[in-house]
Amino acid sequence: MIVTLTPNPALDITYAVDSVTLGSSHRVGSVRERAGGKGLNVAAVLTSMGREALAVAPVGEASASFFRADLGARGMAHRLIESPSPTRRSIAVVDASGDATLFNEAGAPQPGAVWDAVEEAVAGAGAPGSVLTISGSLPGGAPADLVARLTEHAQRLGLLVVVDVGGAPLAAALAQCPAIVKPNRVEAQAALAAVHGSACRSGIDRDDVVSLARGLVDAGARAAIVSDGADGLYLVHHDVSLHARLREPLSGNPTGAGDALTAALAATVERHGGLPAGRDAWIEALRHGVAWSAAAVLQPVAGDVDPDDVERLLSAVEVEENPA
Amino acid sequence: MIVTLTPNPALDITYAVDSVTLGSSHRVGSVRERAGGKGLNVAAVLTSMGREALAVAPVGEASASFFRADLGARGMAHRLIESPSPTRRSIAVVDASGDATLFNEAGAPQPGAVWDAVEEAVAGAGAPGSVLTISGSLPGGAPADLVARLTEHAQRLGLLVVVDVGGAPLAAALAQCPAIVKPNRVEAQAALAAVHGSACRSGIDRDDVVSLARGLVDAGARAAIVSDGADGLYLVHHDVSLHARLREPLSGNPTGAGDALTAALAATVERHGGLPAGRDAWIEALRHGVAWSAAAVLQPVAGDVDPDDVERLLSAVEVEENPA
Repeated sequence: MIVTLTPNPALDITYAVDSVTLGSSHRVGSVRERAGGKGLNVAAVLTSMGREALAVAPVGEASASFFRADLGARGMAHRLIESPSPTRRSIAVVDASGDATLFNEAGAPQPGAVWDAVEEAVAGAGAPGSVLTISGSLPGGAPADLVARLTEHAQRLGLLVVVDVGGAPLAAALAQCPAIVKPNRVEAQAALAAVHGSACRSGIDRDDVVSLARGLVDAGARAAIVSDGADGLYLVHHDVSLHARLREPLSGNPTGAGDALTAALAATVERHGGLPAGRDAWIEALRHGVAWSAAAVLQPVAGDVDPDDVERLLSAVEVEENPA
Repeated sequence: MIVTLTPNPALDITYAVDSVTLGSSHRVGSVRERAGGKGLNVAAVLTSMGREALAVAPVGEASASFFRADLGARGMAHRLIESPSPTRRSIAVVDASGDATLFNEAGAPQPGAVWDAVEEAVAGAGAPGSVLTISGSLPGGAPADLVARLTEHAQRLGLLVVVDVGGAPLAAALAQCPAIVKPNRVEAQAALAAVHGSACRSGIDRDDVVSLARGLVDAGARAAIVSDGADGLYLVHHDVSLHARLREPLSGNPTGAGDALTAALAATVERHGGLPAGRDAWIEALRHGVAWSAAAVLQPVAGDVDPDDVERLLSAVEVEENPA
């Protein structure tokens, strides 16, 4: 079982308009709505790939029935914690040429009781050996140690935790030694600056992604994978240090690519009952991570992947040693 | 009592952003929400001016508690008909310079039972001599004769009806001889084209606002007031034909100015227990209509007017005979 937690889900609203003129009024041609958020995308990808996943998220009372119906229609198992705090919206205005302009609300603070219920839901869902992923932003006012606390509690129950958050919440979570952290370059820089107070005192080379991954491991993560856009992934775990990427970059929709990577990592950790042991197992893990991620780029909507794309893309991934 | 009907209310959402870049992603700095829609603005203006008003509107179940709380906080009496069909949204993205870019959803179809309940609510609220205003757009799929049917029913019960809708719904309502119709120039053109099948066969000069107002009266309205932006209002009622405007145009927020005019007309009709009788009474009515409307332009939010502004602006209105 893979439990995916989305601390700050969003109602994703897509408006179709002919064109956008700043300062003007627009009649929206069509409105599409979808239960959104990074952890939901992780669960959706796992579902597409035939893995058992449970999506856990707090959801505003006014949005709960829509979220239930939408996740149900997509075949996604879910446990939603109803909250008096409304679910934020994310509005994508798409013009006739396909260009999207996005407006993302930050998310309103949640009562402490909601976070307690989230923690209980995670604890109740995962047996020892299960995997917990924690993805995305936190709403305003969330406790700084929320992700750390959830990680600690889940690990105490025998769950393996994959953390895909950035900044201060990641910095705090590192001290709980999560199985994998998976920030992008900028998130890793911010987290390490928070850990060390000052990036320049840490001995970490901010411009070297391998150094950032090593810094995350030194700060507590058991394994760190730092993504760097089209340049792929940099892994550090004990003495294994690898770089994986597609031989030829793909063009498409990058939204959700990181969530597909998280899904692949969770699936790997679940299958191994722990972290991949040794270089060859990691090569295989990263090959799948890059292929799932690339397959997501080929889909118009975040959270979708086609297993045939994954199969085909596995052979397009190259993995090499990081420079010492 | 003035009952204001809003067939297609909206949740007005205002996003504050630093600046907008098309094709990019924006973090929304602050989110404000308000129960919106033209008929709600009419009721809000009447409330500001110390008149008794009841706002009637269908509202989606998920938005009902917000609408109730917001209207309650603004001191507005209301009767909301809960519907399974969600309330549409209207999003205003306002940048640091104050420029607003708007995205207006059309509104989802309402079940027939909701329109029946709306009709009952209007009938139950207004005693003979009460005034009903009907304002704004209809959601997709609304019956073409909805406004006509509501007008007929209300008039049968002795209510006086002020219609502020455009196009085909206005064209259909004209046959029920509402007390006042109040379209703008473009809405009047569209309604008369719908009435006559072809505008060029009707003997109406599309470019002459007085001719449009006369055409609306000939098609059934007891009185017609056609607005033409800063050029003011053109009234036709029997042999009274007047033009009213501010001596000096104001700059400000034009949203809600038309609703303030509707509110002023409703207040006049209620006070007279019918249409103003004769030229002098109409001059007074139009003077108030223009002053309320201009006072709304001075407010940043639609639905607000300051009674002191109205008092001051009354003397800034000039009324003259239309050319024969």
